[in-house]
Amino acid sequence: MELFLIEHIKFDVNGLIPAIVQDAETNEILMLAYMNAESLRLTLEKGETHFWSRSRQEIWHKGATSGNIQRVADIHVDCDADTLLLRVKPAGPACHTGERTCFYREMSR
Amino acid sequence: MELFLIEHIKFDVNGLIPAIVQDAETNEILMLAYMNAESLRLTLEKGETHFWSRSRQEIWHKGATSGNIQRVADIHVDCDADTLLLRVKPAGPACHTGERTCFYREMSR
Repeated sequence: MELFLIEHIKFDVNGLIPAIVQDAETNEILMLAYMNAESLRLTLEKGETHFWSRSRQEIWHKGATSGNIQRVADIHVDCDADTLLLRVKPAGPACHTGERTCFYREMSR
Repeated sequence: MELFLIEHIKFDVNGLIPAIVQDAETNEILMLAYMNAESLRLTLEKGETHFWSRSRQEIWHKGATSGNIQRVADIHVDCDADTLLLRVKPAGPACHTGERTCFYREMSR
């Protein structure tokens, strides 16, 4: 497994990178959120997910209010270095609706 | 499982929505790409993933050149309706590098 340094991450024009969050045990996709450089550094340092809230325009420590923190198992980077995949051990539901995953709805076809 | 209509999808200011692609059998995350309304409609109609190539600025039928198409098993929408999760059956590697998944690199900590 090739290792990757934070310096090589490609943030977008707003300084953000999308981060997919996956349950490390069940492999279920829990949510997608955005990180800036500071929230990624906090995530690496603390071992718990931190994001950039685009609506509130502030750092968002997932679970700080709800208690549903996400312990980080590992972080992968894609081939273009413009998407992150975080595998986590969640303390509770990922979604603000109380659902385990934010992807609780299926598209009709 | 609540059903969701394409009319309610929230595309961003560029008319795009991020789409996480997951292997429906192994649950491995394969890639993240972007869809506009047309590529989402083509994906629903054809049952194979179509994206919007931001670099080439054109519809991109995944596997049209390489043969590594992705048959769509199901599509989920997140709570904000601004991210898609596609579970697929891939005919071959997802990554242009030949790796099975685009997330073949791990971040050093």
